[in-house]
Amino acid sequence: MHLEQRTRTHAFLRSRATPRALFAHADTVTWLTGYAAPLQVGPGPFAAAPPLVWYEDGEFTLIVLDSADTTGVTIPVTRYAGYTVDQPIPSAENIAAIIRQLTGHGTTPLGAETRALPAFLLPPVEITPVDGWLAPFRMVKTAEELEKLRRAFALGDLAHAAAQEATRVGAREIDVWAAMHSLVQQKAGGRIPFGNDCVVSYRENNIGGWPGDLPLRPGDSLMVDISTRVEGYWSDSCNTYYPGTPTEQQTSMRRTAADALDFAISLIKPGIPANEIDRKVREFIANAGYPVYPHHTGHGIGVAPHEEPRIVPYNSTLLEPGMVIMLEPGTYFPREAAVRLEDAVLVTNDGAEILTGHLPRS
Amino acid sequence: MHLEQRTRTHAFLRSRATPRALFAHADTVTWLTGYAAPLQVGPGPFAAAPPLVWYEDGEFTLIVLDSADTTGVTIPVTRYAGYTVDQPIPSAENIAAIIRQLTGHGTTPLGAETRALPAFLLPPVEITPVDGWLAPFRMVKTAEELEKLRRAFALGDLAHAAAQEATRVGAREIDVWAAMHSLVQQKAGGRIPFGNDCVVSYRENNIGGWPGDLPLRPGDSLMVDISTRVEGYWSDSCNTYYPGTPTEQQTSMRRTAADALDFAISLIKPGIPANEIDRKVREFIANAGYPVYPHHTGHGIGVAPHEEPRIVPYNSTLLEPGMVIMLEPGTYFPREAAVRLEDAVLVTNDGAEILTGHLPRS
Repeated sequence: MHLEQRTRTHAFLRSRATPRALFAHADTVTWLTGYAAPLQVGPGPFAAAPPLVWYEDGEFTLIVLDSADTTGVTIPVTRYAGYTVDQPIPSAENIAAIIRQLTGHGTTPLGAETRALPAFLLPPVEITPVDGWLAPFRMVKTAEELEKLRRAFALGDLAHAAAQEATRVGAREIDVWAAMHSLVQQKAGGRIPFGNDCVVSYRENNIGGWPGDLPLRPGDSLMVDISTRVEGYWSDSCNTYYPGTPTEQQTSMRRTAADALDFAISLIKPGIPANEIDRKVREFIANAGYPVYPHHTGHGIGVAPHEEPRIVPYNSTLLEPGMVIMLEPGTYFPREAAVRLEDAVLVTNDGAEILTGHLPRS
Repeated sequence: MHLEQRTRTHAFLRSRATPRALFAHADTVTWLTGYAAPLQVGPGPFAAAPPLVWYEDGEFTLIVLDSADTTGVTIPVTRYAGYTVDQPIPSAENIAAIIRQLTGHGTTPLGAETRALPAFLLPPVEITPVDGWLAPFRMVKTAEELEKLRRAFALGDLAHAAAQEATRVGAREIDVWAAMHSLVQQKAGGRIPFGNDCVVSYRENNIGGWPGDLPLRPGDSLMVDISTRVEGYWSDSCNTYYPGTPTEQQTSMRRTAADALDFAISLIKPGIPANEIDRKVREFIANAGYPVYPHHTGHGIGVAPHEEPRIVPYNSTLLEPGMVIMLEPGTYFPREAAVRLEDAVLVTNDGAEILTGHLPRS
């Protein structure tokens, strides 16, 4: 699992004369190994560090707590003892000993993801921060990653169907949210991390936020922007729902957002710079007479719900086949009206394939 | 909010000649400030570090991402800029600059929670690891903490009622789980981190685990051990449910677990050592002719679902009024039968008050 990712990483670290490295960011660990640590309740109480990956001369080792379920991981796994009733939880001492042993015996240059590595595990030798080094390699997806992403997007589609059904006058943001989260967990047959936004249009900040107990009234709308994680890979998708017949303003705003999204998708092809897409979609919204959204036009997605390439003004990265790109134009009038529509697309050799199926298309 | 916690901390740090300290563990930050960062989908993509608390000469400052909702926090808050579309997310550079400024100007001893502090924020001066220093002070709850814990336990009780109702032949672990999680989120009017175990009795490891798609058959049982987080404070509680009439073995095992739990509660009073409770409850189970559970007899609870005092063989900590203690004896036959019952109790001046209400008592 994830051999291609490790091959890319090995080649790159060789080119940067970094024969040893300690990876600590959750996204990196999932990308290198396929292992995705449980989410939803924070770090486990018996782990002393996030899962780590040790790299040395082309060999990768996953370092995790003894109780971690690493089914499917195809690289060696080193485990450190955590839970016991015989002494205070010894996991910190145990993992520190492992890291000392791994890093202490060599004198070759050592890299580390210092933004995620807990300070107490910092090796006692000079290290090179390698945070972000792998981000460019994560942009183009492998066939295996694409399959996982397709499954995640399919689950997201189901959640949207549940949102459509749950949206009615009197329902609160959290009611719609709970209906979606329940359904995806039951369909997946297990716990699914579930994120993003579920907000009524009359919020002061109606661009996003966690669901609360605000009810839908006639004439309101509900913006539902959700992410699900399946086998370590995230979906993302947004639609806007109406508890009754949309008003004229809502219909007009939605048409503009839908047209902007279709326009954005029409721009997707290998070789186009990310910021050209960003600029043109912003212009499209402005030309339609609406305030331009204050957020990104889109972003990559994979082991993190947001990754490179960001579709933003400064980013001149050229799209390549195999990238998976979120596109999410929207329009917002605080306390009054909001619409955002978001699709995922795969960059193909000559255009784009839409990966999300939650938006009605005529 | 949480002034008493900071007063205790200040007095202790003075006694340890540590006039400056950087706290980084999520539990510590919640305990010192009341601020509880969102869970369920992992760290936010735009934060470069967990929330931090800087302590200097009796003054506390919370350091968080610009978008963090710190409603209710009564100490100064320093924010660092994160999300922007104008440049790569600058949050790491921004928080690093803040930490450099805070730690760089002094020469007095500096403490840091090095097990949670990201390595890139490690100050360039000698530091004293202060991990775990506050654990003893967290054991005795303030009146404000007790109110939050009571609300969390009440929510857990509701989840158990939903589990009772959802337990039937054909229902899967995840179906019962989703019913509980939906209900608590709808009752709370917002997202609630929801943890622990939901496992059928015929699992190889039927002591605990995340819910999966295993169905309940006639004669099975379902062990439901759940935690909810309310305003940063956790509940914990366990019951065992039967889709039909319990078998003779199930009835007998349950009676033993219930008696062991009642016995454990009867032991709770100020002055008793934690390991005396542990030893006596294990003996109780053994004397009833059942295999003794391989886990702790119980643990403290608060800003973390497990905290001191652990009710385990090595721990001679004496109970004090104001501690909140989980007690959870169980009996397990792998692949066959399992029961665990768990209550929370408050240590009072002369005994215990049960805080959970999910277990039927005659």
